[in-house]
Amino acid sequence: MTARVGIVMGSDSDWPVMKAAAEALREFGISYEADVVSAHRMPAEMLAYGQDAAGRGLSVIIAGAGGAAHLPGMLAAVTPLPVIGVPVPLKYLDGMDSLLSIVQMPAGVPVATVAIGGARNAGLLAVRILAATDPALQRRMADFQAELKLAAEAKGAVVRDQ
Amino acid sequence: MTARVGIVMGSDSDWPVMKAAAEALREFGISYEADVVSAHRMPAEMLAYGQDAAGRGLSVIIAGAGGAAHLPGMLAAVTPLPVIGVPVPLKYLDGMDSLLSIVQMPAGVPVATVAIGGARNAGLLAVRILAATDPALQRRMADFQAELKLAAEAKGAVVRDQ
Amino acid sequence: MTARVGIVMGSDSDWPVMKAAAEALREFGISYEADVVSAHRMPAEMLAYGQDAAGRGLSVIIAGAGGAAHLPGMLAAVTPLPVIGVPVPLKYLDGMDSLLSIVQMPAGVPVATVAIGGARNAGLLAVRILAATDPALQRRMADFQAELKLAAEAKGAVVRDQ
Amino acid sequence: MTARVGIVMGSDSDWPVMKAAAEALREFGISYEADVVSAHRMPAEMLAYGQDAAGRGLSVIIAGAGGAAHLPGMLAAVTPLPVIGVPVPLKYLDGMDSLLSIVQMPAGVPVATVAIGGARNAGLLAVRILAATDPALQRRMADFQAELKLAAEAKGAVVRDQ
Amino acid sequence: MTARVGIVMGSDSDWPVMKAAAEALREFGISYEADVVSAHRMPAEMLAYGQDAAGRGLSVIIAGAGGAAHLPGMLAAVTPLPVIGVPVPLKYLDGMDSLLSIVQMPAGVPVATVAIGGARNAGLLAVRILAATDPALQRRMADFQAELKLAAEAKGAVVRDQ
Amino acid sequence: MTARVGIVMGSDSDWPVMKAAAEALREFGISYEADVVSAHRMPAEMLAYGQDAAGRGLSVIIAGAGGAAHLPGMLAAVTPLPVIGVPVPLKYLDGMDSLLSIVQMPAGVPVATVAIGGARNAGLLAVRILAATDPALQRRMADFQAELKLAAEAKGAVVRDQ
Amino acid sequence: MTARVGIVMGSDSDWPVMKAAAEALREFGISYEADVVSAHRMPAEMLAYGQDAAGRGLSVIIAGAGGAAHLPGMLAAVTPLPVIGVPVPLKYLDGMDSLLSIVQMPAGVPVATVAIGGARNAGLLAVRILAATDPALQRRMADFQAELKLAAEAKGAVVRDQ
Amino acid sequence: MTARVGIVMGSDSDWPVMKAAAEALREFGISYEADVVSAHRMPAEMLAYGQDAAGRGLSVIIAGAGGAAHLPGMLAAVTPLPVIGVPVPLKYLDGMDSLLSIVQMPAGVPVATVAIGGARNAGLLAVRILAATDPALQRRMADFQAELKLAAEAKGAVVRDQ
Repeated sequence: MTARVGIVMGSDSDWPVMKAAAEALREFGISYEADVVSAHRMPAEMLAYGQDAAGRGLSVIIAGAGGAAHLPGMLAAVTPLPVIGVPVPLKYLDGMDSLLSIVQMPAGVPVATVAIGGARNAGLLAVRILAATDPALQRRMADFQAELKLAAEAKGAVVRDQ
Repeated sequence: MTARVGIVMGSDSDWPVMKAAAEALREFGISYEADVVSAHRMPAEMLAYGQDAAGRGLSVIIAGAGGAAHLPGMLAAVTPLPVIGVPVPLKYLDGMDSLLSIVQMPAGVPVATVAIGGARNAGLLAVRILAATDPALQRRMADFQAELKLAAEAKGAVVRDQ
Repeated sequence: MTARVGIVMGSDSDWPVMKAAAEALREFGISYEADVVSAHRMPAEMLAYGQDAAGRGLSVIIAGAGGAAHLPGMLAAVTPLPVIGVPVPLKYLDGMDSLLSIVQMPAGVPVATVAIGGARNAGLLAVRILAATDPALQRRMADFQAELKLAAEAKGAVVRDQ
Repeated sequence: MTARVGIVMGSDSDWPVMKAAAEALREFGISYEADVVSAHRMPAEMLAYGQDAAGRGLSVIIAGAGGAAHLPGMLAAVTPLPVIGVPVPLKYLDGMDSLLSIVQMPAGVPVATVAIGGARNAGLLAVRILAATDPALQRRMADFQAELKLAAEAKGAVVRDQ
Repeated sequence: MTARVGIVMGSDSDWPVMKAAAEALREFGISYEADVVSAHRMPAEMLAYGQDAAGRGLSVIIAGAGGAAHLPGMLAAVTPLPVIGVPVPLKYLDGMDSLLSIVQMPAGVPVATVAIGGARNAGLLAVRILAATDPALQRRMADFQAELKLAAEAKGAVVRDQ
Repeated sequence: MTARVGIVMGSDSDWPVMKAAAEALREFGISYEADVVSAHRMPAEMLAYGQDAAGRGLSVIIAGAGGAAHLPGMLAAVTPLPVIGVPVPLKYLDGMDSLLSIVQMPAGVPVATVAIGGARNAGLLAVRILAATDPALQRRMADFQAELKLAAEAKGAVVRDQ
Repeated sequence: MTARVGIVMGSDSDWPVMKAAAEALREFGISYEADVVSAHRMPAEMLAYGQDAAGRGLSVIIAGAGGAAHLPGMLAAVTPLPVIGVPVPLKYLDGMDSLLSIVQMPAGVPVATVAIGGARNAGLLAVRILAATDPALQRRMADFQAELKLAAEAKGAVVRDQ
Repeated sequence: MTARVGIVMGSDSDWPVMKAAAEALREFGISYEADVVSAHRMPAEMLAYGQDAAGRGLSVIIAGAGGAAHLPGMLAAVTPLPVIGVPVPLKYLDGMDSLLSIVQMPAGVPVATVAIGGARNAGLLAVRILAATDPALQRRMADFQAELKLAAEAKGAVVRDQ
């Protein structure tokens, strides 16, 4: 089966953060591929990845990067697909550099940015995007949200019993 | 025709920023509706807006808010649709409060955040989301990107002639 | 006995921070209830909590949340009670996102914000609020402050003896 | 009539910001007094103001200050009353210094902090505090919130007609 | 012998940071006293400390505090002596709140602020202040600076041998 | 008469900020000299200024600089005199870069830092330093503080009459 | 004559900032070319520019960009030439986003970053780089620095005469 | 052999960060020297180091410093050589103070700043600067970049196999 979502990151050291995106997609049965595509170390391949993405059948790209995080924005520049950016926090600055490098894109080329380290939400946002025109998947997202509610309510017991 | 994208904001004072989202959608012929839906001043109506959005035929919500900007995240909590958040800059802090209030959502409830004041990109991101499963619209986005290139190249003449 | 103060938080993971509010209330013999009420995972229940709070006999709400911390502001939107917000620090940004998401509320809907991680002060602020129209409780707060002074003076011995 | 709320500020240059607190109180018919009480220029008088406040009949203190803003915290140190702090923005730093100087109080001495420049909300918070034990005033606050909703909905017309 | 420098801090938990000021003074043979004088927990005693300082023979006050750090500024308000402020870093924000709360004093009441956690420099600054009108002490400070140079040069050997 | 205080700055464009230091000194009858001494454009002269300062009879140096503000720290490195640093705000960042470049000095070489743009307080701090061993001048500073109080109280009239 | 320095920027709106780099190069008689090369709007051409730069005879690239500023880093990824990055300040955040997006490059791909809006220094840095192996140019840079000193000293007259 | 690159730092405690610059130079066979040259503890020697650098045969200086990091800028003031600044992160503020102290240099005196803690990139930037007029070295840098690509691609296997 062709992957519907491409998960890419600048380095394999981003994987411990980014794998949460893959897990979210798996929970919804969305096919995905994952790869290292470094904007700074393999720029030509990176552009090629973005340029080919739609043609290869991908519908959404999730890109994680840290520091001067150029990967999400550069992919968005060469694909008409929606690109979700995950600011990966590095050793210093708590991901604030990653966040600003990803979210502050100029008019014309948007990146859908999630929270610092928020790869799980990147996966869930990809599901919502695919569900925007897929009623069955949309119902599953609604069910997922209902489960979130039940889980949150259950957690309240711990606090109420204090 | 039913609107495909809902553009909402916390106050009519956000409209000068947010109208750029509407303009982007118009350029792509995407139907939209615009309204003031304040998380803090009309919370029940705000939740109702989000809960009814998918049923009314909306596919994407664009929500702009400033300061302690709760509207995008609250809508994302009650709809399975993708929600795009626009951090509106207010008088102080240059929109940094708006950005953090929108982007730093907890795992489970994503908001697709764009740049501070980046409403045009919010509109373009909505187009990309709709185009993810619409080849014709995706081609139009690709054409739009080709035009961005031509415009950028033309601008170079000004600099080259200095 | 009906609780006078409601302590709520977005997740049970906030409890290690928030329990200091409960302890402060216990020291003053103020009845309270504690629960998980997530703005993002159980929004309808969250609004209901706020809407019912005054009618159930609560006089003050203490709400703790982290990151894009919407709980205190959303509760303040649906109750006429004073709402005290506690910015809970998460893994990144040291609670600066939590603080700005809570304190930067628009005109019309105030949240009484305390320090990052300052749940004990949230409890003490609730006592002061209740004491504003309760001379006996106000005297106890004054006594508490006198004890703070004695304790601080005693601590000086450690330093003076160096 | 004795004032129920004391509005104080470090300098008369803070009044253009702080008068919004007075206006909010007037809208609710709450008596107030306003004065300049500088922590740094009249420290003894400042402490005396705080120490006498409860005895003079005040129930709430609203204190605004900018930069190294010590007034709200110092008053909170000498009164058992709830003290509301308003971070007044000065020429540089957009009020971030004022905010941190007011909100980051140590355990034991809370200040109820509102948004940068948020004096109107300081007034409304004082009303909520007084209303916590005053059902009639609480109903008026609820009515005020209902009017906020109507005003917000009316503002939507401007946007909907675009 | 009467102390020439007073070292005060808001809590004994500041002592591990502040003792470096005492050590610097000891190295120069400057007499000092150290005490806990909390602006927020013993405000009247704090003002009294400042008001009496000059009369008791102190020539310089070193004050350390963290978070909403009001001690240095409040002491400066009630003494004509030079007051040196040490921003003590607390659990969150790396001392940025402490720094801004101390350094951003309004015109009229200066605090001589040193680096975050920079208590040793506070001690050395006190020596320089006393040395401003004491040629012998000034020579000792010049000697100290010469020793700093020798120590720095010696450290170079470690690096040069790499 | 030999100047007792040297006021230096990195550029004549800093003078509109720095002249407030001179005015404060004039109010107290303290002799001063003012000059441009750029750390980056005339480094040898800058070091010479610092090395000669004590010998020429100066007792305090006030140094203002903006951006990567190295002047105060470099002067402190070559003189045993107390050096007061004034962070001059430039076009961007509101003086935060100036502040950190001045205040965050390493152990061994202190700079007495005042508020961003706080040149008047630099002058007043110089007076306090000179007054530390000059009872008459110390009384004048105490008188000045008493006048500050009267002026602040007078300003209250404006607010009280609102 | 073939240009030795390429000055590129993401948009012609960056030219008012970037032209100062060209002026500096002209002062030293260094040939340059200027063009708009947008990382986000003409990514393939941008990479081609970088890949061809050395072959076309350029020795240094100066790249200016604002917001999520990817141009300097992407060029550095595809050329072995030294790339100087100029953080261009945009409407919000005072260029802090531009600075972090440019300077925080991952190990392997450096960008020589100058101050926010510091295009003149970018030009001067290019001269220093070319002068590193060109004794005559290095002497001219030393002469330029001597002139800076004279100009700074002359500016002191304005201040000294106050 | 005379060193072509001088690596200096304010303290031997900076060496664990700075040695990565030396390693990068060794990989390219560039001769270097390393030393402690403290701007604040040995200012005269520091200026002498800068003034003599070009005459001794150095072509590039790499300077690392933390906090109020004045070393890179001061060296740039006294040498016509390109100076690369490495912001060394200290205990607090994650190197933001170091970064701003180094990068925000005034017009006339540039410092080529790299990432916080980015000493390896400082070494690689020095290689690029030397390679700007050395075709053989430029080819080696191009080869190095090709190896970066291969290494990044290889890392992708780890992620692809997940």
